[in-house]
Amino acid sequence: MTTPTRSHGRLSIRATARPRELMTDTPHLAGAWQARVITLFPDLFPGVLGASLTGKALQDGLWRLETIDLRPYGVGKHRNVDDTPAGGGAGMVLRPDVVGRAIAHAQQDTPADRARWPVVYLSPRGRPFDQRMAERFSRTDGITLLCGRFEGVDERVIDHYGIEEVSLGDFVLTGGEIAAQALLDATVRLIPRVLGNQASTEEESFSEGLLEHPQYTRPTVWEGREIPEVLLSGHHAKIADWRRAEAERLTKERRPDLWRACRAAHGMDPEGDQEL
Amino acid sequence: MTTPTRSHGRLSIRATARPRELMTDTPHLAGAWQARVITLFPDLFPGVLGASLTGKALQDGLWRLETIDLRPYGVGKHRNVDDTPAGGGAGMVLRPDVVGRAIAHAQQDTPADRARWPVVYLSPRGRPFDQRMAERFSRTDGITLLCGRFEGVDERVIDHYGIEEVSLGDFVLTGGEIAAQALLDATVRLIPRVLGNQASTEEESFSEGLLEHPQYTRPTVWEGREIPEVLLSGHHAKIADWRRAEAERLTKERRPDLWRACRAAHGMDPEGDQEL
Repeated sequence: MTTPTRSHGRLSIRATARPRELMTDTPHLAGAWQARVITLFPDLFPGVLGASLTGKALQDGLWRLETIDLRPYGVGKHRNVDDTPAGGGAGMVLRPDVVGRAIAHAQQDTPADRARWPVVYLSPRGRPFDQRMAERFSRTDGITLLCGRFEGVDERVIDHYGIEEVSLGDFVLTGGEIAAQALLDATVRLIPRVLGNQASTEEESFSEGLLEHPQYTRPTVWEGREIPEVLLSGHHAKIADWRRAEAERLTKERRPDLWRACRAAHGMDPEGDQEL
Repeated sequence: MTTPTRSHGRLSIRATARPRELMTDTPHLAGAWQARVITLFPDLFPGVLGASLTGKALQDGLWRLETIDLRPYGVGKHRNVDDTPAGGGAGMVLRPDVVGRAIAHAQQDTPADRARWPVVYLSPRGRPFDQRMAERFSRTDGITLLCGRFEGVDERVIDHYGIEEVSLGDFVLTGGEIAAQALLDATVRLIPRVLGNQASTEEESFSEGLLEHPQYTRPTVWEGREIPEVLLSGHHAKIADWRRAEAERLTKERRPDLWRACRAAHGMDPEGDQEL
């Protein structure tokens, strides 16, 4: 029989296919942030998350990733997970009983308080994912992610389990797996010690609400193009001023929405364009 | 020596490590949409794109995916691809000469017209990716995607090659690979014949600018919760009305920005809340 849970972290939990069995047969690193992903494609994980900094952090036990295969919770001989939409229409809808059993399994040994352990359904109908949401998720004990396929999931499951709907953006994906990986990547890199000494200025830029200034590196001349002189001047204050002005110019040009929000946050007229 | 190009489509192109060699040694399916991805992690592809509908379409030759490993284009014995930022600061910046050689390789045999073959750098500084952009990309001959890492790429490469910066959203990812997979998934499923008969109502919903209405399926009663009566009535006009009203309610509640844009598109007062 298929094992519905796979663990990619340093210490493994193995659970049987019986959905409600307690996942207590192996210990895990106390306090490590946990992600549990319900999906019809468990083999797609850890995927991108297994590489680079998130992958190293996974190996080091700084976070844990478990996939819960939805298929064994399906009904009938063929373990069907979906059915036609009530009221008609194209596509298929994930059944509430099937998804409900998988969620019940995923939630074992987790705090009932959704602030400590959110249950998230990745869907274009959700609230747009952003850096602030990643910060909130990174401060929880863990998260359960439900990856949709087809036309979505029965609404009663969302209501019953107090599920938060989160959208990666205003576009349609074949399934929630890519969105889950993006959410986890952005969240995991905020967990203490994951980035190590690579503390990035990107976050600072985002938390200020501005796009990042242009970057340059060696060679000093490339294809007849030079690095802006100020960056080679060694004059730290002038460099900081130039970068700030460039960040503001780019934000104004490309993201008037961010620019207005940033000005409002500084108590300035959102429609103005003088420097912050 | 490492082969910088891998192909995951039905017919393979193999190129040597010499960056500017023409990729003409094998034929490919005429007219199939092509994606070329420049990345330090070629093994992460096709990843999620190899599963489900996009994976089947890849096997059927309806689109082609090639990865171009950035590493062999690096400089010196260690094939370094990055260097410290001019003007100082944390992190590392991808070198223009290194990235430039990889892009020159990727662009061989492609139309110079960026409308027919966009070159995209995935970056939080870019224009937000959305369904309309996916539709535009799906109508091109192909696309080259540059996946960043570290603090970004030297600005001169972006200028020199007329690169379009695209953002997956207002959050920071460890690298561009997940963003590339999201962009490709949303784009590829719009290519004719990829979705087959699974033509989804989701797109219709999005192209109208509304979030999708709730969905329900069997069982009719679950955990004491019933499917809304109207959906079981068999009365098609009433069902359509209910779905439309629910889509408008959800959009108003969750995405006032979409709601205002949708009303404006219908020539109505963006701030009003009467039905469309």
